[in-house]
Amino acid sequence: MAEFLVHIEIEWPPERSQDERESIFAAELVQGQRLAHAGRLRRLWRVPGRWANWSLYDVPDATVLHEALTSLPLYPWMNIEVHALAEHPNDPRALGIEPPAPTKETA
Amino acid sequence: MAEFLVHIEIEWPPERSQDERESIFAAELVQGQRLAHAGRLRRLWRVPGRWANWSLYDVPDATVLHEALTSLPLYPWMNIEVHALAEHPNDPRALGIEPPAPTKETA
Amino acid sequence: MAEFLVHIEIEWPPERSQDERESIFAAELVQGQRLAHAGRLRRLWRVPGRWANWSLYDVPDATVLHEALTSLPLYPWMNIEVHALAEHPNDPRALGIEPPAPTKETA
Amino acid sequence: MAEFLVHIEIEWPPERSQDERESIFAAELVQGQRLAHAGRLRRLWRVPGRWANWSLYDVPDATVLHEALTSLPLYPWMNIEVHALAEHPNDPRALGIEPPAPTKETA
Amino acid sequence: MAEFLVHIEIEWPPERSQDERESIFAAELVQGQRLAHAGRLRRLWRVPGRWANWSLYDVPDATVLHEALTSLPLYPWMNIEVHALAEHPNDPRALGIEPPAPTKETA
Amino acid sequence: MAEFLVHIEIEWPPERSQDERESIFAAELVQGQRLAHAGRLRRLWRVPGRWANWSLYDVPDATVLHEALTSLPLYPWMNIEVHALAEHPNDPRALGIEPPAPTKETA
Amino acid sequence: MAEFLVHIEIEWPPERSQDERESIFAAELVQGQRLAHAGRLRRLWRVPGRWANWSLYDVPDATVLHEALTSLPLYPWMNIEVHALAEHPNDPRALGIEPPAPTKETA
Amino acid sequence: MAEFLVHIEIEWPPERSQDERESIFAAELVQGQRLAHAGRLRRLWRVPGRWANWSLYDVPDATVLHEALTSLPLYPWMNIEVHALAEHPNDPRALGIEPPAPTKETA
Amino acid sequence: MAEFLVHIEIEWPPERSQDERESIFAAELVQGQRLAHAGRLRRLWRVPGRWANWSLYDVPDATVLHEALTSLPLYPWMNIEVHALAEHPNDPRALGIEPPAPTKETA
Amino acid sequence: MAEFLVHIEIEWPPERSQDERESIFAAELVQGQRLAHAGRLRRLWRVPGRWANWSLYDVPDATVLHEALTSLPLYPWMNIEVHALAEHPNDPRALGIEPPAPTKETA
Repeated sequence: MAEFLVHIEIEWPPERSQDERESIFAAELVQGQRLAHAGRLRRLWRVPGRWANWSLYDVPDATVLHEALTSLPLYPWMNIEVHALAEHPNDPRALGIEPPAPTKETA
Repeated sequence: MAEFLVHIEIEWPPERSQDERESIFAAELVQGQRLAHAGRLRRLWRVPGRWANWSLYDVPDATVLHEALTSLPLYPWMNIEVHALAEHPNDPRALGIEPPAPTKETA
Repeated sequence: MAEFLVHIEIEWPPERSQDERESIFAAELVQGQRLAHAGRLRRLWRVPGRWANWSLYDVPDATVLHEALTSLPLYPWMNIEVHALAEHPNDPRALGIEPPAPTKETA
Repeated sequence: MAEFLVHIEIEWPPERSQDERESIFAAELVQGQRLAHAGRLRRLWRVPGRWANWSLYDVPDATVLHEALTSLPLYPWMNIEVHALAEHPNDPRALGIEPPAPTKETA
Repeated sequence: MAEFLVHIEIEWPPERSQDERESIFAAELVQGQRLAHAGRLRRLWRVPGRWANWSLYDVPDATVLHEALTSLPLYPWMNIEVHALAEHPNDPRALGIEPPAPTKETA
Repeated sequence: MAEFLVHIEIEWPPERSQDERESIFAAELVQGQRLAHAGRLRRLWRVPGRWANWSLYDVPDATVLHEALTSLPLYPWMNIEVHALAEHPNDPRALGIEPPAPTKETA
Repeated sequence: MAEFLVHIEIEWPPERSQDERESIFAAELVQGQRLAHAGRLRRLWRVPGRWANWSLYDVPDATVLHEALTSLPLYPWMNIEVHALAEHPNDPRALGIEPPAPTKETA
Repeated sequence: MAEFLVHIEIEWPPERSQDERESIFAAELVQGQRLAHAGRLRRLWRVPGRWANWSLYDVPDATVLHEALTSLPLYPWMNIEVHALAEHPNDPRALGIEPPAPTKETA
Repeated sequence: MAEFLVHIEIEWPPERSQDERESIFAAELVQGQRLAHAGRLRRLWRVPGRWANWSLYDVPDATVLHEALTSLPLYPWMNIEVHALAEHPNDPRALGIEPPAPTKETA
Repeated sequence: MAEFLVHIEIEWPPERSQDERESIFAAELVQGQRLAHAGRLRRLWRVPGRWANWSLYDVPDATVLHEALTSLPLYPWMNIEVHALAEHPNDPRALGIEPPAPTKETA
């Protein structure tokens, strides 16, 4: 399995109706959760001030990543940049280092 | 607590001696692990083909993040770009979605 | 609380009617003042020659900043770049340094 | 008087001695405070992760701004970008809008 | 008074009718001359091969410059970049140096 | 004769001695004035906050412009960008429009 | 006379009818040949894979170049960048150096 | 044979002695003329204001072009960008169109 | 014969009907295979997350490459960048080096 | 196995001795061939006019790619950009399409 960092900008035409927008964004959330349940999508953050996000994917390779990304209903309006990641010997998760217990969990 | 995505390029002069290089990189690993044990540094990946990495920090704010980054021994040779992250309602961790059990854990 | 420097470009289609334009810009002013009264928006400047501005926000974190920015009526037509700020030990406000009294106040 | 937003990157050679570095940074702090007392420098923030800062100047014009910036001891190692600002009719300070009293003051 | 160097790109949709185009460009010329008579606009050059120009403005500050630029009929179709200028001690005009008399005057 | 807008960044190594710096900058001023007396250099402005300037040249063609620029003592440390200018029919100077008399002259 | 290197990108809307496209491209070819017969346009090359070209113009100055370029029927859909050229003392044509006779002539 | 447009920036350290500089530039001129006599280098222009040039090469393919460019004595200090050119059906040379006779020849 | 590396971004309007999209993409696949059978197109890869690809062409020169690329049905919606390639003396194929036999073949 | 397209710029200081240069470039060739024999490096091309190349790697994942690239003796002087590739259903190799027999083989 390989991790990829993914940056997505959504270029949705502002003049489209609110109905269309709500319906496609709802479908987007559902498909995102499907990818999460399948173990493909691991983390998702918003870029503050933009219709954009950063996400962390865990997939066998770039071909499967492409399938996951093109399965998103908003894909035709997305500008996506994929960053391949290599393992770092000092990655806290690889080293099994956990944050101290009393730390409030980030969600 | 707030998460930040951090991109670091290391601009280490190639003509420095191997001893200097090994000694500062060893100190770097130690300090990175200290930040991990403190719960500041959560993930760390290499950018393939570069003296560069992506990392995920979890800190109270940008001022504490600056302190963490400037504590790294290689800081004077680093070109760092910080990406502030906002919470996304569909973040798998926020939703408590776990990857399926038989999936081999990524490290 | 954390300060953020925000750069906004407005990409309003020039062929839209003057009525639409005046109505949305009026709503924009009202919402900007609401954010100011709430202590979110602290300063606002125009970029000379552009439908663009710089602003200074004071918010708990990037998630609240995102909520403030997306509450602006012109948000769908905005291209926003957020700059996270860390405290500087030499910031005149932190040091309690006031400009000399006879100086005409900038507004 | 006119406000300018100023972005400064400091390109200090990492191989210079710690003494030189400490001495010039100390002189830098002193001169920054002089500019603050003169009402030229109003705000100063760090860019997290970089030897860089954003600052807000209040000066009669660009010529006086240039004099202020070139008076900084680190000026020869600075890469400076100046953003001219125009007044915005909705600037909270121009409108006399104050943040709500119980809000903890940002420094 | 302060000088500003202004770069303007005109993004006029090529499919608009010739009448519309001629009428707005005629109005543009008139308003440009008004700004010249008011002493705001001092010089104007075309960028060869583009619907673009460089101009030199002489105004009290960036706020007045913004008013001048937004008074242009083509303003909604303009992409404008403003360069603040500081006085240079070696500026030929400041030094009162005139070009030699027999030189054919540039217009 | 043709006008050119010229942007110059000076990349002078900050570690050179003050004597060298003063001597070459003095020679630079002298040569700049020679070019002004010859009618080549017409205007000169500083870019605020930078060892950089904008200038306006009036020369027969790009070949003569190159000779003028390479005659500057700081030429080997300059990064120069030349912008060819075409005449604009609405240029105030071509139209013989003068700024109103009581306007304080910019130098 | 002065030579200019000109880079042109054609941004023709792909959804326009084939008739319109063929008719304007035919007019473009005719006007290009007129400019060649007038000695303005000397060389013309395609950028492989793009509706774009490089060309070499020989004109008295940038003002005449602008007239030549705006006379092209496709001008409103062109994104043009002009590179002013200065004479080089080692230019083979200036030195009268001819390629060896048996070389197959490039057209 | 194929034509290539070549853009060369020379990054010669300004602190090298004048002797070294004159000697390598002289060798550069000689090798440039050799390439011209071999029919490889066809045209050469200076970029005004820079140690840079545009040139036109006529070679069998990119491999031979690389050999020609690396044969230049200044090659290790050059930043070179190669633009592959395709034939354009409207190229004046391909059409055999000559500039009008009385036109003063550009060199 | 010369190899070229080609990067293609497809800018297909997302609001076009699914029928149009399927029909033109099907035609695209057919023409791509024709170019492969002709020995022009040698390899083709997707850029993960984008309507974009990298390809390797083997053609006599840039003029034939242009013909091949413009023969693609999606050409009017493509943004293409061509990278000319020169032979490298250490290219495994030129040296006749084969990957080890038991290696699973990449397709 | 996954293919990656790799772009490498070599930033070798031109003032280093010819001996050093020849010795490290010889070691580079040897290690490149080792990677080819291991099936990691599949193709290698020069960027004409630059100390730069494009290469095609075939490796299990980005972590192994990083190991291969850092094993190159010139690695400390390389600026490397890695492009992850996904499989394209129309890749001639995946489809088993061979170029026509009489075509002269490219090396």
